[in-house]
Amino acid sequence: MKSVKIENLDWVTYKELTESGKSRIILPIGAIEQHGPHMSLNPDVLIPSHIGEQVAARGDNMLVAPPISYGYKSQVKSGGGNFFPGTTCVSASSLEHYVFDVLQAYVNHGNREFILINGHFENSMCLCEAADKLVNKCKSEGIGVKIYLLSYWDFISEATISKVFPDGFTGWAVEHGGVLETSIMLKLHPELVDMAKAVDVEPATFPPYDVFPPDPSWVAPSGTLSSPLKATAEKGELILEECISGILSHLN
Amino acid sequence: MKSVKIENLDWVTYKELTESGKSRIILPIGAIEQHGPHMSLNPDVLIPSHIGEQVAARGDNMLVAPPISYGYKSQVKSGGGNFFPGTTCVSASSLEHYVFDVLQAYVNHGNREFILINGHFENSMCLCEAADKLVNKCKSEGIGVKIYLLSYWDFISEATISKVFPDGFTGWAVEHGGVLETSIMLKLHPELVDMAKAVDVEPATFPPYDVFPPDPSWVAPSGTLSSPLKATAEKGELILEECISGILSHLN
Amino acid sequence: MKSVKIENLDWVTYKELTESGKSRIILPIGAIEQHGPHMSLNPDVLIPSHIGEQVAARGDNMLVAPPISYGYKSQVKSGGGNFFPGTTCVSASSLEHYVFDVLQAYVNHGNREFILINGHFENSMCLCEAADKLVNKCKSEGIGVKIYLLSYWDFISEATISKVFPDGFTGWAVEHGGVLETSIMLKLHPELVDMAKAVDVEPATFPPYDVFPPDPSWVAPSGTLSSPLKATAEKGELILEECISGILSHLN
Amino acid sequence: MKSVKIENLDWVTYKELTESGKSRIILPIGAIEQHGPHMSLNPDVLIPSHIGEQVAARGDNMLVAPPISYGYKSQVKSGGGNFFPGTTCVSASSLEHYVFDVLQAYVNHGNREFILINGHFENSMCLCEAADKLVNKCKSEGIGVKIYLLSYWDFISEATISKVFPDGFTGWAVEHGGVLETSIMLKLHPELVDMAKAVDVEPATFPPYDVFPPDPSWVAPSGTLSSPLKATAEKGELILEECISGILSHLN
Amino acid sequence: MKSVKIENLDWVTYKELTESGKSRIILPIGAIEQHGPHMSLNPDVLIPSHIGEQVAARGDNMLVAPPISYGYKSQVKSGGGNFFPGTTCVSASSLEHYVFDVLQAYVNHGNREFILINGHFENSMCLCEAADKLVNKCKSEGIGVKIYLLSYWDFISEATISKVFPDGFTGWAVEHGGVLETSIMLKLHPELVDMAKAVDVEPATFPPYDVFPPDPSWVAPSGTLSSPLKATAEKGELILEECISGILSHLN
Amino acid sequence: MKSVKIENLDWVTYKELTESGKSRIILPIGAIEQHGPHMSLNPDVLIPSHIGEQVAARGDNMLVAPPISYGYKSQVKSGGGNFFPGTTCVSASSLEHYVFDVLQAYVNHGNREFILINGHFENSMCLCEAADKLVNKCKSEGIGVKIYLLSYWDFISEATISKVFPDGFTGWAVEHGGVLETSIMLKLHPELVDMAKAVDVEPATFPPYDVFPPDPSWVAPSGTLSSPLKATAEKGELILEECISGILSHLN
Repeated sequence: MKSVKIENLDWVTYKELTESGKSRIILPIGAIEQHGPHMSLNPDVLIPSHIGEQVAARGDNMLVAPPISYGYKSQVKSGGGNFFPGTTCVSASSLEHYVFDVLQAYVNHGNREFILINGHFENSMCLCEAADKLVNKCKSEGIGVKIYLLSYWDFISEATISKVFPDGFTGWAVEHGGVLETSIMLKLHPELVDMAKAVDVEPATFPPYDVFPPDPSWVAPSGTLSSPLKATAEKGELILEECISGILSHLN
Repeated sequence: MKSVKIENLDWVTYKELTESGKSRIILPIGAIEQHGPHMSLNPDVLIPSHIGEQVAARGDNMLVAPPISYGYKSQVKSGGGNFFPGTTCVSASSLEHYVFDVLQAYVNHGNREFILINGHFENSMCLCEAADKLVNKCKSEGIGVKIYLLSYWDFISEATISKVFPDGFTGWAVEHGGVLETSIMLKLHPELVDMAKAVDVEPATFPPYDVFPPDPSWVAPSGTLSSPLKATAEKGELILEECISGILSHLN
Repeated sequence: MKSVKIENLDWVTYKELTESGKSRIILPIGAIEQHGPHMSLNPDVLIPSHIGEQVAARGDNMLVAPPISYGYKSQVKSGGGNFFPGTTCVSASSLEHYVFDVLQAYVNHGNREFILINGHFENSMCLCEAADKLVNKCKSEGIGVKIYLLSYWDFISEATISKVFPDGFTGWAVEHGGVLETSIMLKLHPELVDMAKAVDVEPATFPPYDVFPPDPSWVAPSGTLSSPLKATAEKGELILEECISGILSHLN
Repeated sequence: MKSVKIENLDWVTYKELTESGKSRIILPIGAIEQHGPHMSLNPDVLIPSHIGEQVAARGDNMLVAPPISYGYKSQVKSGGGNFFPGTTCVSASSLEHYVFDVLQAYVNHGNREFILINGHFENSMCLCEAADKLVNKCKSEGIGVKIYLLSYWDFISEATISKVFPDGFTGWAVEHGGVLETSIMLKLHPELVDMAKAVDVEPATFPPYDVFPPDPSWVAPSGTLSSPLKATAEKGELILEECISGILSHLN
Repeated sequence: MKSVKIENLDWVTYKELTESGKSRIILPIGAIEQHGPHMSLNPDVLIPSHIGEQVAARGDNMLVAPPISYGYKSQVKSGGGNFFPGTTCVSASSLEHYVFDVLQAYVNHGNREFILINGHFENSMCLCEAADKLVNKCKSEGIGVKIYLLSYWDFISEATISKVFPDGFTGWAVEHGGVLETSIMLKLHPELVDMAKAVDVEPATFPPYDVFPPDPSWVAPSGTLSSPLKATAEKGELILEECISGILSHLN
Repeated sequence: MKSVKIENLDWVTYKELTESGKSRIILPIGAIEQHGPHMSLNPDVLIPSHIGEQVAARGDNMLVAPPISYGYKSQVKSGGGNFFPGTTCVSASSLEHYVFDVLQAYVNHGNREFILINGHFENSMCLCEAADKLVNKCKSEGIGVKIYLLSYWDFISEATISKVFPDGFTGWAVEHGGVLETSIMLKLHPELVDMAKAVDVEPATFPPYDVFPPDPSWVAPSGTLSSPLKATAEKGELILEECISGILSHLN
């Protein structure tokens, strides 16, 4: 069986591909989180998975691990909030330990380099903690491990931003369920987007603090932090291509 | 968007389907684990996911949550052992807490009944602990939650066993990578099975104890605990049908 | 002081017996759990303790550690359930960490081999996790540790089963409080068995799933999963002897 | 079956004795710890167990739970230190969680009052934490729980001290393995004491700080912190009687 | 004793000030972290503490709790990295649990509103998790708690940014040890700043990913992410005033 | 910048002072706890901090780390109890892990010796556990770490006790908020003591057990366990001087 997806390999093939210790394991980490009434709950899983597969397909010695679907709690300012039906999130320690153990298992197979592709902003510090702890544990055991941690949108250039947001860009912070994610999903999974249900909203603005419990009135009733109306599959293709080639040029 | 898979729903549709509090959430839990040189690493994820989707499609008020892919450590006597390349497992506490949090999130949405479909024997006690703790926590908060926990193979009848194993059945314990799982995978995902690579092995026999660290010589080099050679898609179909209808007749 | 029980030794004697690093430490792990109205709550502690002492007495370089009395939560299908008065169980993580620490302490004394004798089915995965973690921790510190994990009933032969259950054997699963345990207790501690209170029940049958919270109606009101009526001290002696000699022949 | 020891009761009897919710559950907590070359490793378990049984036998509505044998790490100034062979201790969190879970289980049976009898000084703060957490958890669930925590030596009067230590008393702190514990063991378990091996040592004096790792030279090579030579069974009887009647007069 | 600092109050005064349940408790959380060769290790503690005291002094019913000094691990892109001597950080779970417990204790006193003033970017998600967990735990106990979480720099206006950074602002991300923090420290604690040791560096630029273990060559040898040379006490005063009045206008 | 307080150093100076690996890091650990109506809530923080600074100033190669302010739960017999308003305490595991991480961070900088100065009796076992775990973890990594743990009052001589308590000394146990702490605070921070509010109480006497939940009637309404009325700054100076010189003579 030939695939860049580890789960689709038999163990003998996986062993042959990784036994040099030079493979890089790509681990996509996402979330199950509302993305507006026009889109499914899984863009944060599907997008980094797709990017990971493309990076692996074009790069050298790379394999993609099964993604981790459930991520850290959605926050109001970046994901609308953890109170939306369908937003299904885990605690920081659960995510940290689950990711740590998965990485440790791949280390046990002899792998030494990892690329974590994050699709959900709120995961960042949990992934950072898991990576830091694993690297330090392995170091104390005499094993050198290197872990790259990235969020795909950080590879999008100013030039592309200008094209994708011709009327002005209000920051990644409010792109939750907006043009960025909707465009990519239109390209990758048009069957999971229904633009007829897309709701036009102004880019969200927030007070300079957070509050717990969160205040639902801070978020548009639709759940997106900006309008998805101008999303197109072409924009999605442009973004994806830049993320994939960007990751490859930095990390291959 | 219409689907029994929660991840493919938009949040408004999910809300409409679940707001009565009468939906049952099916959560498949598997493992990434070697299943012999002839099969991919993901049968324990794909099989309960498929069964869950079929149960939901045929049953009333049922939805399938995204599966949990990485499961508890493979044991020699039921999965060949945690030392095989490709077997990628997490610790008991990580699995327990991750599952607990996922279930808690679905409870937060108003759901009260769950069906955990386990595809990997070793997960059982972790799932039991997560379920027990959640039920007790909810109870102390005045919330009644009911969780069914099942392993799909427990729904296979003696009659089917006779058909699937006409030469005699040596127990589920040694079916790891054998006729049971291979047949189902041949039915569901023939592209992930290569019978040309299947290795004939005698049903495994073990001493009446376990040992840590595990002794690799207890397991056939191929990693399966019995021979997959007599697997067929027809047997897989028979088994699947019985599991799906059995779960429905018990739990619908 | 001369004893196979570590707790009865003074520390100098213990040191002399273990300083070669070749002793095997036997650790019995049980549970405080109802076993029907005819029997005390401690068979799962007393039986593995007795077996451990006998194994140590007849074997070479073996010592028995004080048993761990409180075990993992009783499950309906193997112990009647955690809701019976008198069933006094701890969580998975508490048992795992307590056992881990006890084993670590014996490793600190220079011991390298352990035999965990389990008397309560539900403990199995917690003991497995403790053993796996300790072995891996020690390995990362350059210390080779070997841990055998066994449940005593796995050493009973088909021949003995035929003698003990002349009317047919319905599986260890339903032996909770039945002929197996009652016979052994009649042999070891007749003062803790009152056959006049023994209740005749049919061997339990269960649906092919578990449910949380457990459903008390699945269990006979007496709490045993099969009838203890045909238990005798002679059967107990036969079983014990086989377990003890079986363990010795495998592990001595 | 009639006994003050819970483990010796069948569940129906236990239920009858406790269903009023007015029983007090006595839980002895000890340690496996060196007590000099003249004494076994288990006085910290046996002494509070005996006291607990006597208190229960003479008091009203009291039952004794199976003791917890392995306690918190022996410290140099109160137990000689955790580095002695035979001293077999667990971490603070393991002890805390194990005790918490055991108490929770007894609460689940309907019990509301507990008496923790501590036999090992170092356990104190772990027991305090377990008790505090349980009381608060139960309170948040609307359940009133009351837990008494005591170390038996705190019930010994000045008058008895004068009799037991006619040459002057240097404080409980250095009684580890000395006249106090040896006398009680001579009374309760003379077979576990060998006065011929008792080593005469001056009462230990220590610097006004602790150091980690501990410095073995701070402790007499025999491991006791004062001399056991003047221990007698008569002194043991006197002490025990005072502890038992003292506990009863305060808590019955 | 009269003070806005809780630690300087006697308990009776504290009780009088808080017993209405209407006080707001301000908790500053910082870090001990290198801030260049020209500045002490504690700006992240001192700045939010000062702001908290001023907010409390000018606002209604506000008190400042003792700050939490040690924060989450410094990251390369926001703090230079956890490998600098003097950067003294704790893990995510330790910070989360410590903050949780402190807040819980203040809730136990009857307080219901909290303002967490963060002085160290990397703390954010740990504080978010502690706040979320506490709010949910209290809610399940019928207690309504409200927690505001803010980082002081989020209250600085565009107008002030223009004045403080007349040559252009490169983002808060690279202000670590730069004009922002140095100016405030020059205003508050000139004795802890030595501008003669300040090193001129270009604003840091980073690849669009993180790597573990961190690569020290990504950071200027001085440890700051931008140049502190144009810092002045006047700028510090302007910033502080805006933060204090901003917090008051939003939250008073 | 020149200071014995680490937080007041810039990182380059800190590096120069510690890079030999021969520095000793002093870590004060206290509590926020009521100390009677006449005194602020922070004596347990201020006193060990002051002592630490003086020890460092007079000793060789010593530096003082920022203190840890929030300590383990106040107990009735040593601190009046955790139910007083203003007593703001954390759980055992939170304190243990927080201290462990702080010490680990200082080890990461190359430091190998630590002096923990405790100002709050109840912290003792948590500090002991953190120290023990760190020393063992470091040892398994081949790093030798030495940690001294002390409570400052253990350095006060009989002679000084006679002077400070001319009418008789009833033990450190009841000195909470009494002459000892009040005298030191009068010397160090007279602005935080108001002797006009001091309440005369008899030295507390307690039953020979603890109870949970605590019984407030065991403590004087003022919260101190003995009378502070005879406290003077002169006594405070005497005590402080003895503690400082005592620590230096033992540990320098």
